[in-house]
Amino acid sequence: MSVLEQAAAARIAAIDLAAATRADKDAALQLMASRLVERAEDIVTANAVDIENARTGGLSEAMIDRLTLTAERIAAMAGGLRQLAALPDPVGDVVRGSTLANGLELRQIRVPFGVVGIIYEGRPNVTADAAGICLKSGNAVLLRGSGSAMSSNAAIVSVLRKAVADAGLPANAIQLLDATTRDSVKELMRARGLVDVLIPRGGASLIKTVVEESTVPVIETGVGNCHVYVDESADLEKALAIVLNSKTQRLSTCNTAESLLVHATLAETFLPMVVEELINAGVTVHGDPQVAALDGVVAATDADWDTEYLSADIAVAVVDTLEDALDHIRRHGTGHTEAIVSENVTATRRFTAGVDAAAVMINASTRFTDGGEFGFGAEIGISTQKLHARGPMGLPELTSTKYVVTGNGHTR
Amino acid sequence: MSVLEQAAAARIAAIDLAAATRADKDAALQLMASRLVERAEDIVTANAVDIENARTGGLSEAMIDRLTLTAERIAAMAGGLRQLAALPDPVGDVVRGSTLANGLELRQIRVPFGVVGIIYEGRPNVTADAAGICLKSGNAVLLRGSGSAMSSNAAIVSVLRKAVADAGLPANAIQLLDATTRDSVKELMRARGLVDVLIPRGGASLIKTVVEESTVPVIETGVGNCHVYVDESADLEKALAIVLNSKTQRLSTCNTAESLLVHATLAETFLPMVVEELINAGVTVHGDPQVAALDGVVAATDADWDTEYLSADIAVAVVDTLEDALDHIRRHGTGHTEAIVSENVTATRRFTAGVDAAAVMINASTRFTDGGEFGFGAEIGISTQKLHARGPMGLPELTSTKYVVTGNGHTR
Repeated sequence: MSVLEQAAAARIAAIDLAAATRADKDAALQLMASRLVERAEDIVTANAVDIENARTGGLSEAMIDRLTLTAERIAAMAGGLRQLAALPDPVGDVVRGSTLANGLELRQIRVPFGVVGIIYEGRPNVTADAAGICLKSGNAVLLRGSGSAMSSNAAIVSVLRKAVADAGLPANAIQLLDATTRDSVKELMRARGLVDVLIPRGGASLIKTVVEESTVPVIETGVGNCHVYVDESADLEKALAIVLNSKTQRLSTCNTAESLLVHATLAETFLPMVVEELINAGVTVHGDPQVAALDGVVAATDADWDTEYLSADIAVAVVDTLEDALDHIRRHGTGHTEAIVSENVTATRRFTAGVDAAAVMINASTRFTDGGEFGFGAEIGISTQKLHARGPMGLPELTSTKYVVTGNGHTR
Repeated sequence: MSVLEQAAAARIAAIDLAAATRADKDAALQLMASRLVERAEDIVTANAVDIENARTGGLSEAMIDRLTLTAERIAAMAGGLRQLAALPDPVGDVVRGSTLANGLELRQIRVPFGVVGIIYEGRPNVTADAAGICLKSGNAVLLRGSGSAMSSNAAIVSVLRKAVADAGLPANAIQLLDATTRDSVKELMRARGLVDVLIPRGGASLIKTVVEESTVPVIETGVGNCHVYVDESADLEKALAIVLNSKTQRLSTCNTAESLLVHATLAETFLPMVVEELINAGVTVHGDPQVAALDGVVAATDADWDTEYLSADIAVAVVDTLEDALDHIRRHGTGHTEAIVSENVTATRRFTAGVDAAAVMINASTRFTDGGEFGFGAEIGISTQKLHARGPMGLPELTSTKYVVTGNGHTR
């Protein structure tokens, strides 16, 4: 089947799925979870093919580790689906409601988008996650995974589709697209009218391509050049902990800090301290001229300020004022997460208002910008655009709304 | 200045505007309103140039009427701005808030988009409306009006910019783009990163072009092939009033009904009655074979079912069941407004769930899908897409959100 045929089948499935009750959907999620565990051996066998190909293709051990499925990892996927079943259903939520002056009853109600396309790389566990989140929010999903995980994804989707059908919901609500060629991505990006929204999850170049070429509306996710700004009024102990945590708690995530801005009044006290701690933690510090004067610091190039390292590197600059910090962030930030460490209310208020980002952290690590940490229970990605959803996207962010207006023969 | 330079200037203005209080913005709106009235004569003089050009260019009298500004129409524009000043400010609204288990305080707060681009045709009053709505919602706006209204728009924008500056807000929050060439539209569509959202207001072909070519996120507005479905259980008196009102109350709006679906059990009773009334009201009825058998009905072609007439025409079909009505709407609807006339709760429930549209009317005219009618006070258009905003867009729909997370040295 072509992508357009698959999308058309998904549209039909989406009609039934939109009408499914929470109980129907939760039962399907539970069955999907138990079937994954039951069929773990088959999935591991399918995964072995991908791993074999990855070794032949010379993929790095880190990449192979991300690709690898074990009984334990499959159990975790199942656990994720069971967690989704426990979450409230966003569909049917009344977002706004009132009775108008003329007696018309106005209700704005959450409804599924219809068909969601997800383009992703890397880990095959995303396949089960994305399928589960879309099903729970009443959306049919078209999954375009990585070519490197093709065999694993096919095995997972086959198990999930069977479970969905056995639970009485349409199997075509979950479909895997051909990952052998780029054509399927292109077709998906042009399937306006059949696909309601496209979510690219992956590296900056994938996201850029989708944003530029898709006529299907896109929710942009993920690129994070996050800053921590340490204000003159900062509690230095908190500042140290937050900088270290923001940078080193996990290196490869989009909410990891990539830049540190330190107020000039702290150049003699806090700055050498934090630089030393970062270096001790194995981080390479790329500093502006003032920072580079410190032991062990590499001189930063212009490119450093715009780099999402996703590695044990950080760019560090001294700024004269909070306004300079805001200017720096405006020029180099990607609108993901910006943090201020400060004990001064006027400073935090100004920073919060002046920063244009999905999340602003006040005296907290950038690493908290996360659907799980925010208590959303599930996350399909972190939006860095301003339209529709901004920040971590949970189940409600995978819905649209519909106005239902009830009258009694009302005319204008 | 090029469009990109104007957009860059708008971005700078947007920073100040985002920080403006409601009081600042309302004062500016009031000044914009009184200046428009004071300068009405100059605006009418500028408008005369457009009208002269329109006559030379052979524009229809209807188009010339839409273009024409009088002291009265300018006073109405001013009234619109004063009405905006009276509306609550969406910026700063807390959409969601809680304290997380670890003590982090999470707040999701409405913030302006930043820079909004509006591409529109026809009436010069849209210029003041759009400028006012964007200013109230804290957004800088780039206005790309019609070439035919160029002189009028320039006069209006000049008055508005001066008023904004005199009120202490940045004049560059309101900018008019060159309307002499299509290049300004093209540049605007590629200004991703400088322009946050683009709203095309106009005919289907303009909207299609913008949707397909823009890399700036677009909110699609307006095309409405709206249906009224008269169920077997309908109160025929209500049905008659609703059909007539939906079709004839105003012919050229997107929420006007263009198709009527009648349940087969009403083919002998209601159908001839409604057809006669429509014809008496001056409407040309395009009917399926069964309807075309009635006096004065034109046989419908395949194209009729997909046509947004915006004229005194309606397509009428007989359907055997409610499910057939839903199928018809799925094939031909544009996701704007669909109405059911029925006294049966099971039927209205099924219709409401089965229809995929921005608004579903139960025993009410399709004409009610309107920001003013919904009590939003102001409307920038009616979104027919599912992302971000669906249905009439008021002030909150012109905002994004930002998460503000406050901790006390929190780390993961």
